[in-house]
Amino acid sequence: MVKVAVAGYGVIGQRLADGVSLQKDMELVGVVDAALTISVKALKERGMPYDLYAANPESVATFEAAGIPVSGTMEDLVQKVDIVLDATGAGIGAKNKKIYEKYGVKAVFQGGENNDVADVFFHGYANYEKGLNKDYLKLTSCNTTGLIRAIDCLDRKVGIEKVAITIVRRVADPGDYHRGLTNALQVDKAPSHQALDLMTIMPHIDATGILVHTPVTHGHFITVVATPKTDITAEETIEAFQAHDRIRVVSIDEGFLGNASLFRYARDLGNSRGDMYEISIWKDTVVKSGRDVMFGIHIPQESVTIPETMDAIRAALGMQETREEGTSKTNEYLEMARWK
Amino acid sequence: MVKVAVAGYGVIGQRLADGVSLQKDMELVGVVDAALTISVKALKERGMPYDLYAANPESVATFEAAGIPVSGTMEDLVQKVDIVLDATGAGIGAKNKKIYEKYGVKAVFQGGENNDVADVFFHGYANYEKGLNKDYLKLTSCNTTGLIRAIDCLDRKVGIEKVAITIVRRVADPGDYHRGLTNALQVDKAPSHQALDLMTIMPHIDATGILVHTPVTHGHFITVVATPKTDITAEETIEAFQAHDRIRVVSIDEGFLGNASLFRYARDLGNSRGDMYEISIWKDTVVKSGRDVMFGIHIPQESVTIPETMDAIRAALGMQETREEGTSKTNEYLEMARWK
Amino acid sequence: MVKVAVAGYGVIGQRLADGVSLQKDMELVGVVDAALTISVKALKERGMPYDLYAANPESVATFEAAGIPVSGTMEDLVQKVDIVLDATGAGIGAKNKKIYEKYGVKAVFQGGENNDVADVFFHGYANYEKGLNKDYLKLTSCNTTGLIRAIDCLDRKVGIEKVAITIVRRVADPGDYHRGLTNALQVDKAPSHQALDLMTIMPHIDATGILVHTPVTHGHFITVVATPKTDITAEETIEAFQAHDRIRVVSIDEGFLGNASLFRYARDLGNSRGDMYEISIWKDTVVKSGRDVMFGIHIPQESVTIPETMDAIRAALGMQETREEGTSKTNEYLEMARWK
Amino acid sequence: MVKVAVAGYGVIGQRLADGVSLQKDMELVGVVDAALTISVKALKERGMPYDLYAANPESVATFEAAGIPVSGTMEDLVQKVDIVLDATGAGIGAKNKKIYEKYGVKAVFQGGENNDVADVFFHGYANYEKGLNKDYLKLTSCNTTGLIRAIDCLDRKVGIEKVAITIVRRVADPGDYHRGLTNALQVDKAPSHQALDLMTIMPHIDATGILVHTPVTHGHFITVVATPKTDITAEETIEAFQAHDRIRVVSIDEGFLGNASLFRYARDLGNSRGDMYEISIWKDTVVKSGRDVMFGIHIPQESVTIPETMDAIRAALGMQETREEGTSKTNEYLEMARWK
Repeated sequence: MVKVAVAGYGVIGQRLADGVSLQKDMELVGVVDAALTISVKALKERGMPYDLYAANPESVATFEAAGIPVSGTMEDLVQKVDIVLDATGAGIGAKNKKIYEKYGVKAVFQGGENNDVADVFFHGYANYEKGLNKDYLKLTSCNTTGLIRAIDCLDRKVGIEKVAITIVRRVADPGDYHRGLTNALQVDKAPSHQALDLMTIMPHIDATGILVHTPVTHGHFITVVATPKTDITAEETIEAFQAHDRIRVVSIDEGFLGNASLFRYARDLGNSRGDMYEISIWKDTVVKSGRDVMFGIHIPQESVTIPETMDAIRAALGMQETREEGTSKTNEYLEMARWK
Repeated sequence: MVKVAVAGYGVIGQRLADGVSLQKDMELVGVVDAALTISVKALKERGMPYDLYAANPESVATFEAAGIPVSGTMEDLVQKVDIVLDATGAGIGAKNKKIYEKYGVKAVFQGGENNDVADVFFHGYANYEKGLNKDYLKLTSCNTTGLIRAIDCLDRKVGIEKVAITIVRRVADPGDYHRGLTNALQVDKAPSHQALDLMTIMPHIDATGILVHTPVTHGHFITVVATPKTDITAEETIEAFQAHDRIRVVSIDEGFLGNASLFRYARDLGNSRGDMYEISIWKDTVVKSGRDVMFGIHIPQESVTIPETMDAIRAALGMQETREEGTSKTNEYLEMARWK
Repeated sequence: MVKVAVAGYGVIGQRLADGVSLQKDMELVGVVDAALTISVKALKERGMPYDLYAANPESVATFEAAGIPVSGTMEDLVQKVDIVLDATGAGIGAKNKKIYEKYGVKAVFQGGENNDVADVFFHGYANYEKGLNKDYLKLTSCNTTGLIRAIDCLDRKVGIEKVAITIVRRVADPGDYHRGLTNALQVDKAPSHQALDLMTIMPHIDATGILVHTPVTHGHFITVVATPKTDITAEETIEAFQAHDRIRVVSIDEGFLGNASLFRYARDLGNSRGDMYEISIWKDTVVKSGRDVMFGIHIPQESVTIPETMDAIRAALGMQETREEGTSKTNEYLEMARWK
Repeated sequence: MVKVAVAGYGVIGQRLADGVSLQKDMELVGVVDAALTISVKALKERGMPYDLYAANPESVATFEAAGIPVSGTMEDLVQKVDIVLDATGAGIGAKNKKIYEKYGVKAVFQGGENNDVADVFFHGYANYEKGLNKDYLKLTSCNTTGLIRAIDCLDRKVGIEKVAITIVRRVADPGDYHRGLTNALQVDKAPSHQALDLMTIMPHIDATGILVHTPVTHGHFITVVATPKTDITAEETIEAFQAHDRIRVVSIDEGFLGNASLFRYARDLGNSRGDMYEISIWKDTVVKSGRDVMFGIHIPQESVTIPETMDAIRAALGMQETREEGTSKTNEYLEMARWK
């Protein structure tokens, strides 16, 4: 039984904790936070399903003053586990790394950290083997994680030469008050970092892209223009996506009109927090542009990286030796593709 | 064990089904819908935790063609139950009533129906006894239900003469594509129907109000200027709310910045669909205006009426004879006020 | 002096009236509307800068009851002009056409009408000569008009083989209450009509595209992946756009962060209604994808079609024989490219 | 001819410059800014209708490098004028004051500055005489300015004892990218500063209020519950508002559905930037709550303070001795109430 800690109990950290809890070959020993956030308050109101450790001695006092049970400090927790999933804010992960090094514990960092914090920039489907038995892995960001699922899926089928992506980015998560747009689209300088990140993970593909922020909270939308090495029809493209365990193929006629339908569907499914691990691709958007194939992807930004982070644990600890075994185990425990 | 059906498996119907399932003295026999909505698809993907009945014979074919198990038609279901919670679209409830009458089954209608569909316009806290052993009850709408909780709470303490409310209404539910506002506030003619409805339920209070629609999806916000019969301080007002089982008193300093914080909190609590049965009142908004007291309420529109609908079942079927007993039983099974 | 009428004094019609007024070789004889809209009320409050004609005899009474001076009916106006710009709602233009035919008057329809209402589907830059001396022209829609400006610009320089577009569509105009999205992206079936329309106007180009509606009101954003016949660098692409009189090249570093910056800029310019005739292309978005060039365009949906509609008048009435002469005259009177 | 400068050429500064230009007894000598904003770029593209002065010597270089003509520095400008309208960001006005003192020039500060920067906290209608011949005045903020217009109007008619307001605040101006909310309402601690400011200006009135930020850009909406000293009917209230030169009485049936309708109307009127100097009150929202009267106000946040700032110049320079004369002169030149 592999022992896991989660550092940072925010949007991603909470979902990582849930994800680890579902893995039958892993044990979630505890979660770490520094402040009395509403997520920590919710943990208490739920009866502390996860043990809470304070990021530092001062936080112990903060939590205790609020009547929240604390099981120790982060340093205490780190000594009890094999690996830490670090979902703290950008920059903090790099500081935490010193603690992980001190106690010889492995770690998986989230997309917000700099690449140089880790030995490998990791994606479960695209480069699992590169992460095998490594000490420090860094996950791709939410958009890149979902995008690579789709590109890797086609790449393994027909080979992909290049992709040009348009990212219609949700600008804030539900509940965010520190960022937001009101009646405005915001354009980023191209190429987007997601295109660059894709090339880091899949160096044989030429990628570029434009990103525009939009005032919504439930899921990014990415359009992809992909140039295959071997010709592929729209129907074959759809079939390839349908065969993938972390991709859901949906259609407008079924009632999936956009990101808000998918969020509602996840809530109607009774998924914790209305989360969704899979990306969705609209069948109705798969079209040909000459030899290129074009399609549109929904990225549930809060939860999409959870499966690949489970893969990362499996790779870093050598729990499974191959991509197929590692991702299959994750998928089994997360009940991915149960809708099929 | 009281047998209950839910007609209309939409935003409210789904939540009513969940609510009934939590009542240990009730049995949910089945839910009814007419169309292959994403909510019905989600029911199937979840493995049919509730038996589905088709609104009519044509719907049977629709569901079966989609591979969704159907347990019969609405008429079949109505014969198996003591009471139907009718959460169908406005106008349909009135038609359904003929079926209920045919089989001598009681029913509780939701706020969208006309008042004349029912014997009593009902609120669990404000007029429970009026609903006792009646055949047809109609619930107040989401805003009115939450508002009356707060007003009734103060009214029982110090007596309320009049209220002037401002409703900052969320214009659509998450997932709605058939309505919405983009960068616009929309003003309704005053007085708002919520003020008029409050006077129907609590005829001893003079109420008026202005409603403005705003482009958000997670919860209405109501400000109330209430004139008490006996003077009450801001602190006493807060204490009265804190003592109520269906009211949560929150503050900005705790991190509850607005409706989006509360939705996030409900998700972080792991509540199914991120639902919240209680209204929240910001401690920071309770101020005095001369003798009047002013405060701001959050109304979680999708789920706020669930507890009062459970009360309605209890009243209509005479399960508990008094308001105290009826609402307490509901609160016990819904674990209301577990945060205290 | 060519005599022009505008039918339909709504979002587009008002701007057409302004546009015609600026053409020194045209006279705006009057505008037509059927209802007492706020735009008609504004016309009165401004002191009737344009003569108003009633769409039908009943409208005369409506306007007079409201104290709004009416100069006659639409049929009266049609007899006084050489050409009508029909900016009525979809479907009404087809009915109006009978009046135009009755009096032998030419007409230019807007993008909402069916193509078969007209002899030619028209774009001033792409197919001016096809409209020469024709009776009935139909303009491309706002997105297509702006898109074709950019594609035609590159096509004339290096030849364009195919384009794959992503349209991030503003879902409603400022002031719209009859449509809107709240916290939702909405995906359309692909290929988008704009891609199909582009192929109708420029049949030598293969086009496809995906459209997603976003909850904003000030301008669409389109990303284009264009495959040139002859290689072109990003710098050359920017230069080509900079040389075009109806394209503004902007950058993020200058302060143009997105559609809202451009709307603000147009307001700060003192442009009537904050309108902008030119499309804007962000220098920062022009990137290469293999041989393809990718870039992002801003489309000011309320006013972008005005210049091409002026071109359409020039073509239909044979005022100028060539694309260069026709568009140059329009540009001169609209003071296009005065920023250069 | 009074000589006026405007410091800070942003959202408010631009509109102040336009407002001064319309006053036939004032001369706008120049405007000041420090940075190469898009508003300054627009000034250049318009052909420099106003002379630009650099906030400091470094800004001179910035502007000249961008080809923007500079007429000198702020210190140069201050020496040429009788009064400065300071519309710089919060805190800068206090620094600028030293320059005004150095050259013995009067100044009017906007609402963002601290009250202690000025001798008098000013509102043209409520306390004109207090500003007479004073050196430093500070205007009320946009919400307070509009609110006081309405309250002062009723106060002069029947006397107002107390008010309880709910401010539904637009969270950002069109074009703002540095602030914004996405699908969230945000609640402020009560009482709102607008209620407190009202009491500073009108100390005989007891005021409180709750403010909630909403994700829209075009105009705040305020509901007021006002307690009159002498009874007043809804009809009399409407009549009082209709008689006021800076209040527009509108109705839903006329097509004014909310803030977006009013912004559209202002654009349709051809008002520069779509600005509106008057507040609007919906006839449909005027209702009685016992003796209290309740109503809803639209505040066009970008331009509402312009008239009262013109009043402030008149008071500070003793151009007119009384409130009636001062405000009438402003109204005449701004053509207020031309719609009547």
